[in-house]
Amino acid sequence: MPDPVLDDISHRRYNPLTGSWLLVSPHRTKRPWQGQQEAPSKSKLPEYDPKCFLCPGNSRAQGDSNPKYKNTFAFQNDYSAVKEDQQDYNPEVNKDDVASILLKAQPATGRCYVLTFSAKHDVTLADMTSQEIVPVIETWTRIYASHMAASHPLKEEAARVLESIPRNPDAEVGLPKQQPRYMQVFENKGAAMGCSNPHPHCQIWTTSSLPEEPGKELAEMSKYQKEHGRHLLGDYAKLEIEKGERVVFQNAGFVVVCPWWAVWPFEVLIIAKRHVRALVDLTDDERSQFAEAIQDVTRRYDNLFETNFPYSSGIHQAPLDCTPEEAETSWFHMHFYPPLLRSATVRKFLVGFELLAEPQRDITPEQAAARLRDCGGELYRKSLE
Amino acid sequence: MPDPVLDDISHRRYNPLTGSWLLVSPHRTKRPWQGQQEAPSKSKLPEYDPKCFLCPGNSRAQGDSNPKYKNTFAFQNDYSAVKEDQQDYNPEVNKDDVASILLKAQPATGRCYVLTFSAKHDVTLADMTSQEIVPVIETWTRIYASHMAASHPLKEEAARVLESIPRNPDAEVGLPKQQPRYMQVFENKGAAMGCSNPHPHCQIWTTSSLPEEPGKELAEMSKYQKEHGRHLLGDYAKLEIEKGERVVFQNAGFVVVCPWWAVWPFEVLIIAKRHVRALVDLTDDERSQFAEAIQDVTRRYDNLFETNFPYSSGIHQAPLDCTPEEAETSWFHMHFYPPLLRSATVRKFLVGFELLAEPQRDITPEQAAARLRDCGGELYRKSLE
Ligand SMILES: O=P(O)(O)O[C@H]1O[C@H](CO)[C@@H](O)[C@H](O)[C@H]1O
Ligand SMILES: O=P(O)(O)O[C@H]1O[C@H](CO)[C@@H](O)[C@H](O)[C@H]1O
Repeated sequence: MPDPVLDDISHRRYNPLTGSWLLVSPHRTKRPWQGQQEAPSKSKLPEYDPKCFLCPGNSRAQGDSNPKYKNTFAFQNDYSAVKEDQQDYNPEVNKDDVASILLKAQPATGRCYVLTFSAKHDVTLADMTSQEIVPVIETWTRIYASHMAASHPLKEEAARVLESIPRNPDAEVGLPKQQPRYMQVFENKGAAMGCSNPHPHCQIWTTSSLPEEPGKELAEMSKYQKEHGRHLLGDYAKLEIEKGERVVFQNAGFVVVCPWWAVWPFEVLIIAKRHVRALVDLTDDERSQFAEAIQDVTRRYDNLFETNFPYSSGIHQAPLDCTPEEAETSWFHMHFYPPLLRSATVRKFLVGFELLAEPQRDITPEQAAARLRDCGGELYRKSLE
Repeated sequence: MPDPVLDDISHRRYNPLTGSWLLVSPHRTKRPWQGQQEAPSKSKLPEYDPKCFLCPGNSRAQGDSNPKYKNTFAFQNDYSAVKEDQQDYNPEVNKDDVASILLKAQPATGRCYVLTFSAKHDVTLADMTSQEIVPVIETWTRIYASHMAASHPLKEEAARVLESIPRNPDAEVGLPKQQPRYMQVFENKGAAMGCSNPHPHCQIWTTSSLPEEPGKELAEMSKYQKEHGRHLLGDYAKLEIEKGERVVFQNAGFVVVCPWWAVWPFEVLIIAKRHVRALVDLTDDERSQFAEAIQDVTRRYDNLFETNFPYSSGIHQAPLDCTPEEAETSWFHMHFYPPLLRSATVRKFLVGFELLAEPQRDITPEQAAARLRDCGGELYRKSLE
């Protein structure tokens, strides 16, 4: 049973994964909304779009042409945010010089990949079966494995998993020239989340540094482990399963919750139930269970407001180049950050107070979880067909 | 002269104010954009809108009616995110209980005010003269002064400043029932920034806790001061004035820069040149200079893409209830976070990688500053009249 007081009063909640607070104002959804309306994508897309730069056989911005791929297809982004080849940058640093202290920069290299989920232009993860999502997870795993440092503590696991995953020549990206530190898989879905092409796809950026968010999480998880001798997300998953009030879905391998510290209205977290450190730790069964969890979340999202629900999602796991301690501290999970608040057209803006002071949300995670629990079953579009 | 290497390569920059890194990818603006287009507000607004809940004499959501005010008018938000009166919450905390550690909450109280900038429905700060902006700053100052703790180290400054600022009965909000810890002034401008009413206004939220952002800044500023014996923002303002390449505007009291660590494409920071700790420290002259800086920034913004430029802005200063050390550490400044990237219709989305990994920007702050420097002069709308 959710705490009836927190269901009603303004309060702050603590996010132990990032070590920061947010403001929760449950009564605030009652206010009328006269601001911007999102435009839900109503138009029916074709299964193949000759102008789409991701459809099989089409040609891309810089002239390359796509293979006639079957499900996943990966390539380096034509406008990558990081690249492998660039001029050196190695500024002289003088400890006592104000400019060295206040104008600090470091070079950033790596690769940015685009990866399609399906050859079909008009589907989303919610439309796909979990069996159809498995090849996506397999491709993430292969790309992760092929970018791991030679000294990586999970090298053996990687070798094992590569044997059990079928090769897909269309999703092979080759070996990096420089060893990256970290790999971020993420999907931007929907125009509201800055996605510029509805063809189902995600991005994978490998970077020479550990970025801020996974860095903060690793630090907090490591602190927790030192203090309590257990894993933060292991304890958290168990606690949530016991409590039940924030659980949206679970299967043998994963639990899906609206986390206690959710910022986005219907934010969810998929957490591995056992200690999975990275994609290469997943067994065949667990890849299917992970696919089922992703399928379930995206279908519930679409059912909630009977719309193509926008979100950004992404996986956090052990870095590509990491110490044994970092690998041991990592706990595989996936975040979904969706902006819609009240309907297909009214989103939550994380603006003024959120940017200048701290995140603020209008419904409790317990209320969000209850609504998502009610959205199971068949995809609403299916029953309209 | 901006560093020619950083002008070209991907790199990370460090934000010493928050202690975090961001990714800069200067070459990335070249990519074509096929995603969401913003709808710039084209329609001419009336000077008075009988349906606006902020116009003088109109009535509001919950039935109160507005006075026939002249410039600023302040009232408590009908749908406040925090309130003064609510049920108590005081959960039992057990140090060894996983739920106490991972499901942490604390009550949040305070007041949320709305403050108009002008009686006219159809103006923005960019349309107003700096003399017209002065009463806004005076109202911020009076509200700050009336919410300060009895023990506040700037009590004398507050008493002095209140004598020199004319009273405005329409902007008096009374004394709080409980002593707030902090006050956040912020403006959400434009539909793209979640603003639901174009009548020029800001919000002021007082809260029982120090929020995350100003908390991080205070901690970093204090660390800097301990290490270097000087103020972080004092050193930074001086350094930027010397370098010049990120400076957009300055007068006797303030300098406006695109900070080294800017996240938003045309983000700017207004920094006090001398050690101003809070609004109550500003002299009459400095209030005029601050008004001039705000006028200048908002006019340049509108001129940049000849549109009503959306942004969230806000002031950081000493907390309302603070120790002498916290007051001494604080350095008055104002952030502007505007989303537009390339034109009146193409914004930067801070989504996938930004949410899951770390902020990423597509043009350098030096490039942004150069463009804003070129946008001075008369407001583009004036010359169209
Ligand atoms: O109160 P407003 O301006 O209607 O609301 C806006 O600003 C608030 C404070 O930043 C946000 O929480 C809301 O999401 C946004 O729509
Ligand atoms: O590469 P895309 O999907 O076109 O671009 C989108 O995702 C990127 C990574 O999150 C963001 O930096 C862009 O602002 C956004 O529009």
